[in-house]
Amino acid sequence: MTTRQGRTGSLHVTVLVFPGVRLLDVTGPIEVFTSANEFGGHYVLSLVSADGGEVTTASGTRLGVDTAADEAHGPIDVLVVPGGPAWDRLVKDDELLDHVRTLHARSRRTASVCTGAFLLAAAGLLDGRRATTHWRNTRELGLRYPAVQVEPDAIFVQDGTVVTSAGVSAGIDLSLALVEEDYGGEVARSVAKDLVVFMQRPGGQSQFSARTRPPHTRRDSLRRVLDAVAADPGADHTLSAMARRASISPRHVTRLFCDEVGLTPARYVEQVRLEAAVALLEGGDDPLAAVARRTGFGSPESLRRAFVRHLGVTPGAYRAGFRTTGAVHALS
Amino acid sequence: MTTRQGRTGSLHVTVLVFPGVRLLDVTGPIEVFTSANEFGGHYVLSLVSADGGEVTTASGTRLGVDTAADEAHGPIDVLVVPGGPAWDRLVKDDELLDHVRTLHARSRRTASVCTGAFLLAAAGLLDGRRATTHWRNTRELGLRYPAVQVEPDAIFVQDGTVVTSAGVSAGIDLSLALVEEDYGGEVARSVAKDLVVFMQRPGGQSQFSARTRPPHTRRDSLRRVLDAVAADPGADHTLSAMARRASISPRHVTRLFCDEVGLTPARYVEQVRLEAAVALLEGGDDPLAAVARRTGFGSPESLRRAFVRHLGVTPGAYRAGFRTTGAVHALS
Repeated sequence: MTTRQGRTGSLHVTVLVFPGVRLLDVTGPIEVFTSANEFGGHYVLSLVSADGGEVTTASGTRLGVDTAADEAHGPIDVLVVPGGPAWDRLVKDDELLDHVRTLHARSRRTASVCTGAFLLAAAGLLDGRRATTHWRNTRELGLRYPAVQVEPDAIFVQDGTVVTSAGVSAGIDLSLALVEEDYGGEVARSVAKDLVVFMQRPGGQSQFSARTRPPHTRRDSLRRVLDAVAADPGADHTLSAMARRASISPRHVTRLFCDEVGLTPARYVEQVRLEAAVALLEGGDDPLAAVARRTGFGSPESLRRAFVRHLGVTPGAYRAGFRTTGAVHALS
Repeated sequence: MTTRQGRTGSLHVTVLVFPGVRLLDVTGPIEVFTSANEFGGHYVLSLVSADGGEVTTASGTRLGVDTAADEAHGPIDVLVVPGGPAWDRLVKDDELLDHVRTLHARSRRTASVCTGAFLLAAAGLLDGRRATTHWRNTRELGLRYPAVQVEPDAIFVQDGTVVTSAGVSAGIDLSLALVEEDYGGEVARSVAKDLVVFMQRPGGQSQFSARTRPPHTRRDSLRRVLDAVAADPGADHTLSAMARRASISPRHVTRLFCDEVGLTPARYVEQVRLEAAVALLEGGDDPLAAVARRTGFGSPESLRRAFVRHLGVTPGAYRAGFRTTGAVHALS
C-alpha cells in the first residue's frame, strides 16, 4: 500500500526505551503500528536503548531491546520517545539526551508520549514549539522550559515534525493520527476498531485532571475570601460580596486575586464551582439541577455551558465517564 | 489501605503469558494495577509462562517473565489470561490449558482479555457462564463453545469469579473495575485519570465492529431482494415491496429470511441501513438529516433511536469518535 506521502516501502518506527520507562507509553504505540500492518500498513518496529540491553520498566515488567542506540542506522519515519515517573532524573542524563538528539536528526517525525515531552524539551527540540504532556506535568513543563508553548488541554499537539501527547494512553491517540497521516482514515479506523479505542475522544485532557489545590496566601483578607468560596461554592461570591467579606474595596479584591492567585475573582470562583460540580457528579446521584444549584451555577444550562467550555463534554457525559466503572455491583 | 473485602495485605496479580500473546492485552492490565499502587493499592504483579523464559509477543516485542507456571505457588487475587491472534492454535495447547486450570484453581478471580476468553472456554471455565471477547470473535466463541452464553456488545462481563473482556484495550476497563471492587471508586478514578482513560466508555463494543458481510444464498428470489437492499438501503424495502421484487408471497419472503439470513426482513433492512449510516458518518460531512434520508431512516430522530439502541451512542457522538483522529490536516 502506498502511503499518502507517496512512499511504497516500509516505514521505520524506532522506540527509545530506558530503565524506568512507563510500560504503556511504549506498548500503546507499538500495538497501533503493529495493528496497522494487518490492514495494509508496512511499519517495521525496533526498540533501542542506550546499551542495547533489556530495560526494566517503571511497572517492573522487562522489555527486550533490539539494538543499542548508537548501533542503529538509517532513516527513521517515526521516533517515539516515551516518558517515565522519574523524568526529573532523566532530563539530567546527558547520554540519553544525546541519543534523543541523534535519533531525532535521522527522523522524519519525532513523537513523545506523556512525560517524554520533558526529554524532548531538555534536548532542545521543543524550543519555540507548541507541545503537551501528562496533565499532572503541563505546568512544570512550562516553568522549566519557558521557550515551550504548553497546551494543557490537548490530547496531542503537532508542531512541524514534532508531535507530543498527553498522559500514557494518549500515545495511542497520537499513533493513530500518524497512521492516518501515513495510510489514510480507513486504515486508522480499522486499527482503532481492532484495538477497541476511539479515533477521537470526546473532550480534551482537562477532564482527566485532578482537583487543583487551594492557592496559598498570607494575606488574611484574601484568605477569608478563598476560604468562603471553598466552604460553600454555591453561595454569593460576586465581587461586591467578596469585598464586603474582606472589608476592602472591590478593586483591591481584584488586585489581590491577580497578584496572588493568578486569576480574576470571577474565573477563580467558576473554577472552584466547576471542581465542586465534578466531585458531585463523580460521587453521587443528584440530578443535574440539584448539582447546578448547590455549586452556584444556578441552572443546568449554565452548568452545561461551563462543562463544555472547560472540559469539552456535557455534565451528563462527564458523569457517565467517571462515576464508576459500572461493575461494582455486578462484581461484588 | 484496607480493601473493600476487608483485606489489609498485598493482592497478588498473576499474568499468564505465552509466545504470540498480544502485547497490549498484557500491558494494559499491568499498567492499571501498577498505577493503583500510587493511590493506595497494594498489588504485587508477576508474569508467568510455561517454562519461565521470556516470550515474544505477537508484535515482536519481548517480555521478561518472572516464574515458570508450575513453580508459582500461593493464592492469587487476580489471574489475567490475555489473548493472541493465534488463539485457534492456542486452544489446542494442552500444557497451556493445564496451566490455565491450575492457576485458576488458586485464584479468587480470573480475568480474560480479548481472545483470552477462548483459553478460558477451552479450559472449561466458561461453561454455563456469560462471557465476551473481541467483537471479531464473539460469533466464533458461541459456535465453538455452545455452553458459553456470549454477550457480543459488552466491554466486559462478570459471571461469578470469572470476568471476560472485549478486545485489547478493554483489558484496561476490566482491570479498572477490579480496582474499583478492591479499593473503591476513588482509587479507580485516580488510576483512570492517571492513565488518561475513562472509567466507563460511552456505548458498548458494537460501535467498534466492522461491517458484516452480505449473507450468502443460492435462492435467486432471496438474492434479488438482498441485492436490492444493498444497492440502495434508502429505497422502499417493506415486506410487500420485497415480495413484489421477488415475485413470491410476503410470507415466503419472511420464511426465506429466517432460514437463510437468520433475521426477520425488517431486522435485516435495519441492520443494512445502520451500516450504511455508519459508513456515511465515518467518511463524510453530510448533515444528519441527509444521512437519515439517504439510508432510509427518514428522520434524524429515527436515525438517532437506531444508533442509541444498537450502538449505545448518538449518531453525532459516533461521528465525532470515528471520522478522523482530528489531526490529518494539522499533521500534513
